[in-house]
Amino acid sequence: MRGGAIIDERRHLERLRRSLDELRIPLPLSPRALAVIMRETIRRNRVRDGIVYVQMTRGVARRDHAFPPPGTTPSVVVTARNLDIAGNQRRAEQGIAVVTVPETRWARPDIKSISLLPNVLAKQAARERDAAEAWFVDRNGWVTEGASTNAWIITRDRKVLTRPADNGILRGITRTVLIEILEGRSLRFEERAFTVAEAYEAAEAFVTAASQIVMPVVRIDDRKIGDGTPGPVAKLLREAFHAHAERT
Amino acid sequence: MRGGAIIDERRHLERLRRSLDELRIPLPLSPRALAVIMRETIRRNRVRDGIVYVQMTRGVARRDHAFPPPGTTPSVVVTARNLDIAGNQRRAEQGIAVVTVPETRWARPDIKSISLLPNVLAKQAARERDAAEAWFVDRNGWVTEGASTNAWIITRDRKVLTRPADNGILRGITRTVLIEILEGRSLRFEERAFTVAEAYEAAEAFVTAASQIVMPVVRIDDRKIGDGTPGPVAKLLREAFHAHAERT
Repeated sequence: MRGGAIIDERRHLERLRRSLDELRIPLPLSPRALAVIMRETIRRNRVRDGIVYVQMTRGVARRDHAFPPPGTTPSVVVTARNLDIAGNQRRAEQGIAVVTVPETRWARPDIKSISLLPNVLAKQAARERDAAEAWFVDRNGWVTEGASTNAWIITRDRKVLTRPADNGILRGITRTVLIEILEGRSLRFEERAFTVAEAYEAAEAFVTAASQIVMPVVRIDDRKIGDGTPGPVAKLLREAFHAHAERT
Repeated sequence: MRGGAIIDERRHLERLRRSLDELRIPLPLSPRALAVIMRETIRRNRVRDGIVYVQMTRGVARRDHAFPPPGTTPSVVVTARNLDIAGNQRRAEQGIAVVTVPETRWARPDIKSISLLPNVLAKQAARERDAAEAWFVDRNGWVTEGASTNAWIITRDRKVLTRPADNGILRGITRTVLIEILEGRSLRFEERAFTVAEAYEAAEAFVTAASQIVMPVVRIDDRKIGDGTPGPVAKLLREAFHAHAERT
């Protein structure tokens, strides 16, 4: 959310819908009712610049592994809170550090679920190494994505790279908007995976997420990226984002 | 639980401890206090033959990926309920069907956690194919384990096989007790992985779990196992279990 408006609501709800479909959780209320609840939650929590968060589960039932009986009403939890936008902006001006960790997640990170134990362990590993994010790296050395962000690099020959949104990563909304921005500009963009070795040698690196937009990365493990300060393309994309995103 | 006694409490609490250690969740109460709470929960729910279930989380904190602030008290939830032991016994006399599904879980199923989304999807897939359990099969064709059970077969040359308890499976307590029983008898036991092809050709198959003890498997996918009825070794092991397990 920015200035009281919800950013990219349509795309976020489409993604929610897709994850629910994959998990076969019926949407327990109309999109219109959900939109009203989100706005009421935002209003009651006095949120202007922050995040509204929607969680749905299969509902309340006796503990069992299989789905609960048909007719069980899914549960909906909506929370909203302000984020420290100024602090976020200061962090973006400094850039953040990232550490790499082995990819340990299940086969379907494209489904946005709350089974986030590997993400929690990865994020904590980052914290303990004075970093703000952890990038998962698969057994072949390819970066998949961050614990709560998508991962990007810009090569020394000025190609912007991010991994294709297959089953291996969550298709970030900020990522999708950014690809549209890139395609509308003269920047060279390739949707392809990159290795840790390529990331170490990159001219720039950054992560994207709804709560952080474009956040420059200035260190990966013990390697300085570029000259160790946020790069010009990451800055430009960060500034371009809000002009392009949908506000409702 | 059987006849009001807790079965293998010491081993279950050791495993709980190990999972908490792996996840760095401090035990928020003494083992003695937990034992009292478990017994009080059992008493108030009037459980004699059933299950007592303990869940611990990092505690209540603002939503974030990294661990909550030091000093946050972990949450403890204890539930207990009666199981239909007679129905369970009837099922064991018939034997159950199992389906195989691709292994999609994270890299550490040896940690007993509540991030069970892939297990839920697998168990539901089994239900919808008229089966009681799903066996995960890795990309090389090896059976790892069931959605909520360990997997076993007995080969035609009478070897009892179950996969070693590496990081790829949960070290079931019933599994551990059964290995002790097997080692004390003249049965040939090998702790090694087996393929789906081997399982299809097995003389017998069964699954183990605290709530089911030894449950014979008489069908895997569309293949009848042995003569399609519970095998003699599975029956023998099912009967031997309670004589060997610890009661407290």
